[in-house]
Amino acid sequence: MALDTSSTGAWEALAACREKSPLVQCITNYVSMDIMANVLLAAGASPAMAHSIGEVEDFVKIASALLINVGTLSEEWVGGMRLAAKAAVAQGKPWVLDPVGCGATPFRSQVISSLLALSPTVVRGNASEILALAGLEGATKGVDSTAAATEALGAAQQIARRHGCVVAISGAEDLVTDGTRVLKVANGVPMLQQITATGCSVTAVVAAFVCLFPQQPLEATAHALAYFGLAAELAAADGAKGPGSLRVGLLDNLWSMSQEQLLAGARVTEA
Amino acid sequence: MALDTSSTGAWEALAACREKSPLVQCITNYVSMDIMANVLLAAGASPAMAHSIGEVEDFVKIASALLINVGTLSEEWVGGMRLAAKAAVAQGKPWVLDPVGCGATPFRSQVISSLLALSPTVVRGNASEILALAGLEGATKGVDSTAAATEALGAAQQIARRHGCVVAISGAEDLVTDGTRVLKVANGVPMLQQITATGCSVTAVVAAFVCLFPQQPLEATAHALAYFGLAAELAAADGAKGPGSLRVGLLDNLWSMSQEQLLAGARVTEA
Amino acid sequence: MALDTSSTGAWEALAACREKSPLVQCITNYVSMDIMANVLLAAGASPAMAHSIGEVEDFVKIASALLINVGTLSEEWVGGMRLAAKAAVAQGKPWVLDPVGCGATPFRSQVISSLLALSPTVVRGNASEILALAGLEGATKGVDSTAAATEALGAAQQIARRHGCVVAISGAEDLVTDGTRVLKVANGVPMLQQITATGCSVTAVVAAFVCLFPQQPLEATAHALAYFGLAAELAAADGAKGPGSLRVGLLDNLWSMSQEQLLAGARVTEA
Repeated sequence: MALDTSSTGAWEALAACREKSPLVQCITNYVSMDIMANVLLAAGASPAMAHSIGEVEDFVKIASALLINVGTLSEEWVGGMRLAAKAAVAQGKPWVLDPVGCGATPFRSQVISSLLALSPTVVRGNASEILALAGLEGATKGVDSTAAATEALGAAQQIARRHGCVVAISGAEDLVTDGTRVLKVANGVPMLQQITATGCSVTAVVAAFVCLFPQQPLEATAHALAYFGLAAELAAADGAKGPGSLRVGLLDNLWSMSQEQLLAGARVTEA
Repeated sequence: MALDTSSTGAWEALAACREKSPLVQCITNYVSMDIMANVLLAAGASPAMAHSIGEVEDFVKIASALLINVGTLSEEWVGGMRLAAKAAVAQGKPWVLDPVGCGATPFRSQVISSLLALSPTVVRGNASEILALAGLEGATKGVDSTAAATEALGAAQQIARRHGCVVAISGAEDLVTDGTRVLKVANGVPMLQQITATGCSVTAVVAAFVCLFPQQPLEATAHALAYFGLAAELAAADGAKGPGSLRVGLLDNLWSMSQEQLLAGARVTEA
Repeated sequence: MALDTSSTGAWEALAACREKSPLVQCITNYVSMDIMANVLLAAGASPAMAHSIGEVEDFVKIASALLINVGTLSEEWVGGMRLAAKAAVAQGKPWVLDPVGCGATPFRSQVISSLLALSPTVVRGNASEILALAGLEGATKGVDSTAAATEALGAAQQIARRHGCVVAISGAEDLVTDGTRVLKVANGVPMLQQITATGCSVTAVVAAFVCLFPQQPLEATAHALAYFGLAAELAAADGAKGPGSLRVGLLDNLWSMSQEQLLAGARVTEA
């Protein structure tokens, strides 16, 4: 089954996720663990948070995809991250990197750089993180925490080409590129930024979708972003009064989203 | 006060929990910490998350019960788990084991097996985990992640008899056994499985109830499961639209549940 | 801009937080991470959870304030806490200490005592914790978990004078002192105690407010407590039915609180 970029493709991806319930192993930061697990469950996938050096390789064997997020990074966790990434590559399973806070500190940037060298299938970050990630590798542009997605597109394409991966830049509109093609995703609401770890969580949905369509990580990534953003739009339309009720509605709508809603609302276009 | 298995017993257990507010020390996984603490508070108990080898034994002294959940296991935490379990046994306080993911990896199974040897008062898991746990000890049945509670009853009874503990199997209907008697609990809604760490959290309520009725861990465990499942039923009846609002309603109903609601809704029977 | 203690001062503090969005670095316990980050975002601030010894000093450089909360304490985290506190002092940035569970175990009390020696700008705890904290330093009063804020005022003043910091005692009414003046904050609802980590979270808002008014930590602390408590009152008035919906409404109201609401509702007085 080939995914196109239309909302039909988005529905095919979501329907597959609900039907097959892929096990997504998450090595993620403490802040995100609750909402990420709940987002994966609401999307029909199955989360497993396991990070210990004593079992990550064995866990990868039973998982369908791996997510590595470096949010609350510590030296103790780095070994498990590296082992898990290598195991995923060795077993032909996709893994997704979320380079949280890239550029904020030398320790963090160095760890992220070493993870990027382990061939992630997809990298998803905000514009500042993607700019910093490219900068680590020789680009001249610095970190700009107020950068728009479009400002980081060149950096994203450079990373994508050099590492043979898909790079997604989150923003008011998201951009997803494999180094050649660029998809634009125009879903979501600004208030999502007032809920912690929503960027972390959508990256886990990316992992779930990508493992179901291993030949089309570009399209699968864009559809995951569209689905997640649309769920937030629907929650806002339901009357969310702030970030507390928006989070509740986000989970409800990820769970209840119908084919009609997704076909009507997903906005992925070739940029 | 003796608890019977009727809903009168369930109410006695809940009323005691609200009145005495037992301190439940939780050594639990990162994913569950927020909801577990909130569930204990909503049930009238008092949570304390403390896991460090430097203080677990001292913490057990002031706690009324101990919960050990191995969800996001790492080598660094195992020492604290073992020390705490031993301290609980030495001090005559009940401790409850949640063998999350038993069978998933050798590291995990080995740690769980070593904890089981430290005489838990209650073990609660899903059917796959209980089957794996029995398998670790020589039974021939393997792990089956789709197993129903009834398929794991033999394994549960074997564990219960060998270790002198109560074993609870979560499922569409829960089963609780001390190796001889079997209680069936028919509360809950399927959507609970779309909220992360609800199984973890109900196990903490088991710890709270069991420490108040140390002579009747079988009945106290069943009543905790019934109370929790009924709160989810009431939340669903309140109009929960998905796992986001179900979680909110679960906490609200754990807190507000009246004697009338529990007497009318708890469904524990001798199997 | 000078903050007075009236609700006008509270509004000035909140407006500044929303406008400047200070980055608050949080080294906090696992239970609190989700709600603390969400509370900071709802208040207009920017959270960053970073605790590793490998990067805490670099993180302090980009942060505006630091929070240290010892809830789920372990030996591995203590080094990062100490390094971060020292870096904050060296860089002239405020840091706030939340001495969770002070007095519960020797390990915990010893770590807290060593942190108190590193010159926090503000200390916030419940009455039992503040009494224990003073007791560590030679006072004779023991820990009393049912103590009211007023019972701990002497202890708070002693700590404030000895360490040149502001001390806040949470309770039905909060008290805030710099050793000389005492402010009383009469906002909040009792059910806040049934939501885990609300005390932790308001302490993060204290850090956000204090860094914006470095000459007035007493007033800024009181206003943070008033703002947070009022958001809970508004959520209760919105019809929260239990701790689940109260938490949702708390976040919504922190986000949406208007100037009119805060001017009418904040209750800080000179005691």
